[in-house]
Amino acid sequence: MKVGGVAHRSVRRDGDGVCIVDQTRLPFEFQLLRLQTCEQVAHAIRTMQVRGAPLIGATAGYGFALAMAHDASDTNLERTARLLAETRPTAVNLRWAIDRMLARLSALSAPARLQAGWVEAEAIADEDVGLNRAIGRHGMDLLRGIASRKDRVNVLTHCNAGWLATVDIGTALAPIYLAHDQGIPVHVWVDETRPRNQGLLTAWELTQHGVPNTLIADNAGGHLMQRGEVDMVIVGADRVSAGGDVCNKIGTYLKALAAKDSGVPFYAAVPGPTIDWSVANALKEIPIEQRDADELLQVQGRMADGRVGKLRIGIEGMVAWNPAFDVTPARLVTGIITDRGIAPATREGLAGLYRDKAA
Amino acid sequence: MKVGGVAHRSVRRDGDGVCIVDQTRLPFEFQLLRLQTCEQVAHAIRTMQVRGAPLIGATAGYGFALAMAHDASDTNLERTARLLAETRPTAVNLRWAIDRMLARLSALSAPARLQAGWVEAEAIADEDVGLNRAIGRHGMDLLRGIASRKDRVNVLTHCNAGWLATVDIGTALAPIYLAHDQGIPVHVWVDETRPRNQGLLTAWELTQHGVPNTLIADNAGGHLMQRGEVDMVIVGADRVSAGGDVCNKIGTYLKALAAKDSGVPFYAAVPGPTIDWSVANALKEIPIEQRDADELLQVQGRMADGRVGKLRIGIEGMVAWNPAFDVTPARLVTGIITDRGIAPATREGLAGLYRDKAA
Repeated sequence: MKVGGVAHRSVRRDGDGVCIVDQTRLPFEFQLLRLQTCEQVAHAIRTMQVRGAPLIGATAGYGFALAMAHDASDTNLERTARLLAETRPTAVNLRWAIDRMLARLSALSAPARLQAGWVEAEAIADEDVGLNRAIGRHGMDLLRGIASRKDRVNVLTHCNAGWLATVDIGTALAPIYLAHDQGIPVHVWVDETRPRNQGLLTAWELTQHGVPNTLIADNAGGHLMQRGEVDMVIVGADRVSAGGDVCNKIGTYLKALAAKDSGVPFYAAVPGPTIDWSVANALKEIPIEQRDADELLQVQGRMADGRVGKLRIGIEGMVAWNPAFDVTPARLVTGIITDRGIAPATREGLAGLYRDKAA
Repeated sequence: MKVGGVAHRSVRRDGDGVCIVDQTRLPFEFQLLRLQTCEQVAHAIRTMQVRGAPLIGATAGYGFALAMAHDASDTNLERTARLLAETRPTAVNLRWAIDRMLARLSALSAPARLQAGWVEAEAIADEDVGLNRAIGRHGMDLLRGIASRKDRVNVLTHCNAGWLATVDIGTALAPIYLAHDQGIPVHVWVDETRPRNQGLLTAWELTQHGVPNTLIADNAGGHLMQRGEVDMVIVGADRVSAGGDVCNKIGTYLKALAAKDSGVPFYAAVPGPTIDWSVANALKEIPIEQRDADELLQVQGRMADGRVGKLRIGIEGMVAWNPAFDVTPARLVTGIITDRGIAPATREGLAGLYRDKAA
């Protein structure tokens, strides 16, 4: 994706370091950060300087390369896996990337691990871009179908599952970007996505690409669907169960309920590594991250003097509770847009596309 | 209700003026405002210094008294009705109070209108308190029933339908206050209620009264219900149709869907004047107020230097859309808690309690 005419990935190798976009400064400032240690990678994931399930996975891959540069011993390999795994619990891509890096590197002698670490991390990143392009192609067909019947395709999305949540292009936004580039008239309703307001990231990146979009409160989506203002919902996911349950940013479930109630198709767009074949009952088995209450009680923005800062919207003594994800049962999901095609949100549907993984 | 040990109504006569709580300063500052003209009343309603359907109605009643002090002519009576009616479109209590004041005052000679204006406005206010106490008594029985089965009653509410939304006591919060006073252990999940964050008002007033409460993002309610953490939902309403459709703050519909999906009872608590017997199809007939996009793009809070101010969370060029209310179809509503008892959300149910009005 381009920012100010310059192509960027959300994470990339930069010599013996790793370059990321500091997403905690967006949409106010576009600032690149150079990470040089695995500890800095873990910090970036934990503090959500990088976020989004696919991007977390890819960034963790690079974390191994940085760790191997420092110490390529078995001990440090295991320590790196632990350090990265502890950053965030819900997205399965993180665990997937860690397992892949571990499998690759532990099979090698220590001296070979640095070079192989970079190669494997680059492979994960490149593959992510390829998977997202494939998701975009499959999903675009759905938008094209709607565009054949009406003047404008209105897609509602929740959180950010775009360029910024992946290495490039995005998952939920990939079909939208491709459709826009093909001249299909698409407009996006962007949920604000409290408490961390990732909707502002989505609005920002859609606008960078020239895609018309409108920010709405998380409360407004049901009303819009009741009034026929939404043609389809596309979200990303942090983990999809083998049976098609979608674990995604808190509030996704409410939009899926509203879509069902108004007959609006509801899709999750995910690459293969987001499907967790080991999870049968998502509601019981997927750990839901509980984040700091202060995310609700203070808000970031631009102050009157132009600086970016935080404002406390709560007062002393207020108690808040802040679960970061919820689970949308498969019965509410019209389909899963994957890199291999669109599957019904069922065990049979997903396994039909991923026979090699589902076994 | 008491603030710092002193009893307050949200609106009251103060000599030849009207005293309100400036709700745009809460929860940061408790500040009383004295209004002396009908124009100031209209401004207070329009800018949401006073808000909440019953309180808007009562405050408009006082607006007539202030207007008659200035000019008790027929012309000014009509002008006052127009001025107040144009402030906000969705809450039916406003229209109801205006019609009541008009009927009372237009039957009198001009010299009698000032005195009668105060008397009628005080009557509306006193009646509102009485209606809310009755709502509280009926609703409390539901909480008592739940408390007989478990240690703590968890109620989820959306927006603010408490003391601050009425003359006193509240509608949705009335059963909660009465239950708490009777020793029933009740805890409230408080939706933040973006974009205007009225949940902060709810958390503030519950805490003033000593009721345990927890602020959550609007996105979190469905997740809580899926996990069995909500025993019932109680909301207020700006208008209830003759058939039991509930028009209330944007996002209410999403919570009703989630309640239905998890088998959680969903109630609206309203006084008689909130029922609009003329509305058959709420989705088609009730006008939904569209408010300024800036309500989404800037947030109020306390700055680092202690002052209360606003922070822009959007950036230049961002487009936002801000409908203020939505309609929850009666099929999702377990019952309507009224001052006359609890009715099923059906025409027959409501008409059974209000035979004198429904005819």
